[in-house]
Amino acid sequence: MTSRTMTPAEAHALVVDTLVRCGTDPANATPVAEALVGAELTGQYGHGLRRLPIYARHVLSGKVKGRVQPTSQRMRPGALLVDAHDGFAYPALDMALEQLPEMARDNGIALAGLHNSHHCGVAGLPVERLARQGFLAIFMANAPAAMAPWGGRKALFGTDPIAFAAPVAGGDPVVVDVSLSKVAKGKIMAATQRGEDIPEGWALDAAGDPTTDAQAAMAGTMLPMGQAKGTALAIMVEMLAAGLTGALYGHEANSFFATEGAPMGVGQVILAIDATVFGPGATARFADLAGEIEGMEGARLPGRRRQQLRAQLSQSGIAVDRPLLEEIEALGR
Amino acid sequence: MTSRTMTPAEAHALVVDTLVRCGTDPANATPVAEALVGAELTGQYGHGLRRLPIYARHVLSGKVKGRVQPTSQRMRPGALLVDAHDGFAYPALDMALEQLPEMARDNGIALAGLHNSHHCGVAGLPVERLARQGFLAIFMANAPAAMAPWGGRKALFGTDPIAFAAPVAGGDPVVVDVSLSKVAKGKIMAATQRGEDIPEGWALDAAGDPTTDAQAAMAGTMLPMGQAKGTALAIMVEMLAAGLTGALYGHEANSFFATEGAPMGVGQVILAIDATVFGPGATARFADLAGEIEGMEGARLPGRRRQQLRAQLSQSGIAVDRPLLEEIEALGR
Repeated sequence: MTSRTMTPAEAHALVVDTLVRCGTDPANATPVAEALVGAELTGQYGHGLRRLPIYARHVLSGKVKGRVQPTSQRMRPGALLVDAHDGFAYPALDMALEQLPEMARDNGIALAGLHNSHHCGVAGLPVERLARQGFLAIFMANAPAAMAPWGGRKALFGTDPIAFAAPVAGGDPVVVDVSLSKVAKGKIMAATQRGEDIPEGWALDAAGDPTTDAQAAMAGTMLPMGQAKGTALAIMVEMLAAGLTGALYGHEANSFFATEGAPMGVGQVILAIDATVFGPGATARFADLAGEIEGMEGARLPGRRRQQLRAQLSQSGIAVDRPLLEEIEALGR
Repeated sequence: MTSRTMTPAEAHALVVDTLVRCGTDPANATPVAEALVGAELTGQYGHGLRRLPIYARHVLSGKVKGRVQPTSQRMRPGALLVDAHDGFAYPALDMALEQLPEMARDNGIALAGLHNSHHCGVAGLPVERLARQGFLAIFMANAPAAMAPWGGRKALFGTDPIAFAAPVAGGDPVVVDVSLSKVAKGKIMAATQRGEDIPEGWALDAAGDPTTDAQAAMAGTMLPMGQAKGTALAIMVEMLAAGLTGALYGHEANSFFATEGAPMGVGQVILAIDATVFGPGATARFADLAGEIEGMEGARLPGRRRQQLRAQLSQSGIAVDRPLLEEIEALGR
């Protein structure tokens, strides 16, 4: 057996125990565990338990402050500023997700901005949570720079995600979760580990030229999805998630992969809109469009595959690689 | 001379006179003229005076109601519903743009939704107007169906635009304006007129197969920018601009190019965020990122080229093709 199968509750406890052992307050370790297990259950393993070793090392080095509590300030009736104080993003996200529903109901729409924040994991999860409560939600996050402006050579933008969810009458929410790079950087990292080339169109080398050499790509920049349109959208995400909130831009932020050094300092924004704000029929209308897509041969409704996987894996359990498990068990000892 | 050069004021008067002659209320013709001349001045000729003949024919046939006034209803402190009543989109957009600044200042963020609406022209213009008043703005609009969900064959989504603008300390706003199709449908139409092929990756034929035949592409669907990610974002735009507002989805909407028949019935949403909501320094921070992009060799800051063109064309005038001018002069006579 090269992997061990754990129930979600066991995986959750593993994350909490590990982080607490490394100096995290249990109140902060719990939302981190929910996020990492949530990622595992939707098959987004790159944001799952594999992140735990580096999270724990960030706490051990002080790059993430394990014991700080986020604080929030209602700047206007529809706007909440959350300071993660260089702690984990997830407790700060939870703080926003707890306050946004009432704010959005009262005002029709509400915005939360997070700064002094950290890696935010699967962007589709916070929006899905709001959609299950009857809100359309948009989430944008920035990340350490990996993409250059179209035509340029220097990375300014992260492979920033835009996620969206909408409540669907009689069904699970539609969940759209799009990162603005052509592919995830992890795919290039995996190619370097296997000594393989990468397809054209994924990345540029340090001189700004197209490359299929994975090592050269790691030293260069990631290509955006949709060419110039992708980096144009990345400007929007950086300005909202960082410029507006007082966080660091991708090119100013400290690398996630360094286990020591200054806090990352990235930012996130979450928008929530009461789905009934313009009338009672919107969730039925969202179901109309979802039904058109689900009923079309060859097409897939975004979010459905991950929701089905979650239902399966919640029953069958999460397979955790033994070497990862051993690495986790050794953390903080 | 195959074209005549007009001042912006002359072009504006031409639009107003033509639309009024065809049965449009002057109060509605004025915002249409501002939008069409605004498109000409930023070089977006496809949304400029070339649209005037079909606009006028829509008024003549009753597909657009030239004499209705839009109405608005404040549903919550931060949410405004505007009913265009099957008139032009621009008077309804103006109504939203007049009310959004105060709403966004008071609440931090505000949302306007338009329904029973019509063609909205250059998506970058309304957001730029809000950015000049100190707001970050996002605009999304739907349009008659031209793109299928990724993997599918039936068009459900328009080539829906997402536009974003942010105020920049000491400079003009950054303006991002991205349509979610790989290219504008007008490019395929132009290829059919010239009898030319189109590049691969632009469109699929009616059977859902890639095609370089422009005629077959017109009978098929447009490909999204960013492949599956582009149609995922189109779901977001359709749900916000149409599902939420009570407008028709792209696949339900009546074609813009038919000069008669039912009203289009499409929708739009505009989001405005007070740039100072989380602190006074945001516009300086937007200037930081804009400066990084403008200072990078090979890169371009979105919006700048169009702003420069506007400064030039405001002085040198707008060149209008004689055949178009003749077509316009004959409308409604």
